[in-house]
Amino acid sequence: MTDSPPATNPQSLLSEAYNPRLLQQAGKLLVDLVSQHFLEIEGARGPVLNWKSPADNIQTARQWLQTPDLAADHPAGLDRESRLTRFEQLVRLSLKRGQNLHHPHYVGHQVPASLPLAALFDTIGSLTNQVMAIYEMGPWATAVEHAVVDALGEAIGFPSGCFGGLVTSGGSLANLTALLTARNACLGESWTAGLADKAAATLPTRLPVIVAHADAHYSVTRAAGILGLGTEQVIRVPLDSCRRMDTGQLDSILADLRSTGTPVVAVVAAACATPVGAFDRLHDVADICQRHQIWLHVDAAHGGGACMSNKYRHLLSGLERADSVVCDAHKMLFIPALCAFVFYRNAAHRFVAFQQEAPYLFDPSVNDMAEYDSGLVNMECTKRAAALGLWGIWSLFGPELFENLVDKTFDLGEWFYQLLLQQSDFEPYCKPQCNIVVFRHLPSTLRDAAAEVIDRYQLKLRLAVIRSGEYYLVPCVMDGRSYLRTTIINPLTTGEHLQGLLDCLRKKGTETLDTL
Amino acid sequence: MTDSPPATNPQSLLSEAYNPRLLQQAGKLLVDLVSQHFLEIEGARGPVLNWKSPADNIQTARQWLQTPDLAADHPAGLDRESRLTRFEQLVRLSLKRGQNLHHPHYVGHQVPASLPLAALFDTIGSLTNQVMAIYEMGPWATAVEHAVVDALGEAIGFPSGCFGGLVTSGGSLANLTALLTARNACLGESWTAGLADKAAATLPTRLPVIVAHADAHYSVTRAAGILGLGTEQVIRVPLDSCRRMDTGQLDSILADLRSTGTPVVAVVAAACATPVGAFDRLHDVADICQRHQIWLHVDAAHGGGACMSNKYRHLLSGLERADSVVCDAHKMLFIPALCAFVFYRNAAHRFVAFQQEAPYLFDPSVNDMAEYDSGLVNMECTKRAAALGLWGIWSLFGPELFENLVDKTFDLGEWFYQLLLQQSDFEPYCKPQCNIVVFRHLPSTLRDAAAEVIDRYQLKLRLAVIRSGEYYLVPCVMDGRSYLRTTIINPLTTGEHLQGLLDCLRKKGTETLDTL
Repeated sequence: MTDSPPATNPQSLLSEAYNPRLLQQAGKLLVDLVSQHFLEIEGARGPVLNWKSPADNIQTARQWLQTPDLAADHPAGLDRESRLTRFEQLVRLSLKRGQNLHHPHYVGHQVPASLPLAALFDTIGSLTNQVMAIYEMGPWATAVEHAVVDALGEAIGFPSGCFGGLVTSGGSLANLTALLTARNACLGESWTAGLADKAAATLPTRLPVIVAHADAHYSVTRAAGILGLGTEQVIRVPLDSCRRMDTGQLDSILADLRSTGTPVVAVVAAACATPVGAFDRLHDVADICQRHQIWLHVDAAHGGGACMSNKYRHLLSGLERADSVVCDAHKMLFIPALCAFVFYRNAAHRFVAFQQEAPYLFDPSVNDMAEYDSGLVNMECTKRAAALGLWGIWSLFGPELFENLVDKTFDLGEWFYQLLLQQSDFEPYCKPQCNIVVFRHLPSTLRDAAAEVIDRYQLKLRLAVIRSGEYYLVPCVMDGRSYLRTTIINPLTTGEHLQGLLDCLRKKGTETLDTL
Repeated sequence: MTDSPPATNPQSLLSEAYNPRLLQQAGKLLVDLVSQHFLEIEGARGPVLNWKSPADNIQTARQWLQTPDLAADHPAGLDRESRLTRFEQLVRLSLKRGQNLHHPHYVGHQVPASLPLAALFDTIGSLTNQVMAIYEMGPWATAVEHAVVDALGEAIGFPSGCFGGLVTSGGSLANLTALLTARNACLGESWTAGLADKAAATLPTRLPVIVAHADAHYSVTRAAGILGLGTEQVIRVPLDSCRRMDTGQLDSILADLRSTGTPVVAVVAAACATPVGAFDRLHDVADICQRHQIWLHVDAAHGGGACMSNKYRHLLSGLERADSVVCDAHKMLFIPALCAFVFYRNAAHRFVAFQQEAPYLFDPSVNDMAEYDSGLVNMECTKRAAALGLWGIWSLFGPELFENLVDKTFDLGEWFYQLLLQQSDFEPYCKPQCNIVVFRHLPSTLRDAAAEVIDRYQLKLRLAVIRSGEYYLVPCVMDGRSYLRTTIINPLTTGEHLQGLLDCLRKKGTETLDTL
């Protein structure tokens, strides 16, 4: 042991990396570059997606890791100015090679053109590395999460003070967490004894099942696989003409399962289902689940945000009767990914998912803190301060902003559907309930073509459009046929932009027909 | 349908929320406020943790959501200047009420004083909402992840081109993902048929188990609960005098299990285990697993970063022989949470965890893209561009920075241990192998006190210290007794700061003794 205690060399690479002045300089550079980028893409200048092959992008990303010119004479490697120049190059490259969700021609997946200032609140969390698991490590992050869980839960309609909730890293994890809770509630010893243990008294002889909306998100089937129930134990409820669960069929499926003594872990309803955005009739579904005494889980990852809109909250009527609900703030509340909510109607259920101790983590002398130690209820241990963005936007703009976002994009979905109806060469799949619109292009030359040709055309047409950078939309399969799918999830998208999409599809369609 | 297509009112709240000029103004304000904050806390000014009760913090967070003064005359609510003022208030509040990991007196959990510029790269991802699941949605995010998976996997010692890997939302999820893969590899039909199905041919009559380091992180037991194996089916391997797995006992446990035909899903080793940072002797463990033909999973969430250090990478010798490895870049690589890696020695295993299709998501006409659609290998569906921070820092400072971070903090762990040995009133629990140091304070007046009193003293002493804001450290339980635990995970912490910690504990200890 040396006489003088070890210190940090102020000329070292370490000191430079943590220098607040470098942070300030790089931060302002970043803000200028990103603001300029937003000005351009919000104004529809430049491509939506700057298409490069994976090989090209990966090679470029690797090259920067291997650049050897960092080991200069200076103890800290590059001097400040050279490092800032390099920083600027890395930022420009990252902006240039990304997907531009804020371009009004982006009408793709259910990932929004997120609210820019929400990302600034995220940045506070990233820069100061606020995390949760125990209250002490993220006291403000925890408080903010509690505040938005309460506010959003009340907007959904849960009675104040009775429900519980949490924020987790995405809708798939949120569904997994809720279905784990339902599994443990249904199959008492499954957490400790496992599902294979026939000696455990509460485990049944019939294989437990999950009963789900036929269009349920793939994370529901995945959850069955992960939780040891088995993907084959998911029973899919047939849909009605609007692709909602057929409630008559749901009732008779549950009656059959009950009559054979098959344990039903949960019914999974959708608000809305991913393919065409169909909202289940939740009051009817809740009545049926109540009658059969079965856990009702509603995946409202996409549609849950409609609770903020007076015009559209009717789509969620009955959601407050679900035992568990998933709602992604990073979808219809326009927060950057990931900020997914799980709600339990009965707050006591929040501790049913996980049950164990980590003695080094929690201080047994302050037991009253357990309510605020998120690690006890979350799939993650350490988790990000993911609620800061929603809290910040809500505090800065008020809940009206969320209402405006829902109304604007849902309205435009209906408008786009009407526009499609007026075209002789476009065919909407069905009337939309929200901002998801599915359709296909049927130019006259393809009217009598084989189904396989029409399907291949939709896929090739889409690829041609997105790789041109002019618009971004996605493919989907409905009833075994290929369709085009748009989610209007950028409030800067207007009717004119959607008219332009049809023009673009026609133009690229002509070229595509030649290559079929 | 109206004649003119719907547009966005430039005076509206929506337009204001997406205004690039507002972003620029707010962004620069944020950068100035955070840089000033870093200047203060890095200089050890102000408290580490500004202690407020959960009730106080939650009430404050709620009040901001409910402030009614946003609905002014202007269509966009507040005018620009008032909104920027409000933004500044929200940022100041969030900075003031958080945990200050960058304060050199922070020596708490295994969450680092993260590299500030890594957060700026994170910000690019948040602002532009780059996400993965399919390549198209985050082409650059995907490329960057592939590049750092390759670079870090090679630093661990996996042969180039043979291994696979991914980034996920935290070490607990990473362990869950790897153990799900091991479960599916071990119990062929468990994904589809579930664990309860006795008819499935590959499911054994003996209950499957996981064999784990006795100090394994609680996420391992949790994984057994989640995966349907059951928390009681985790067999804990006794430890040697250094709290590493006793490899003789491991060998005989596995031999017994094999002789009874019990399926072993995985052996879980630690590099290092959480309580005192003990690194398993991985070559010995790998030899044993190889002999018994059992999947070896190594939780290197904390210690994995040592692969970047010439001085300390010997601690990980043999890690490259594991079937799966977890390494958190948000621990010893000092990236903000969350950036956790899962590696598979055999790249083919990356598709074993999940097996299903989401036809709307992936374009069947471009099958060669599946390699780059992260949703196929990840627990999340949509996931954040979580690798940008690591890629940016690596590209900007070179790998030497990570080496310096590991060396600095690991060295200081040893120095602190030696310092403790020299004190008559402090007792280290054991010699540290890295930057985790466990000890207790035993002032002369407590030398002959009952064990219960000494234990209570450690807990009360710690609470007194952290709530004073002078230092932040954590409690732990070793062999049923209470200890104090520090992780030196801020490179700005020096020997003098650690000397100061002992002074602070003595000072607060005197006050605490009066209240025992």
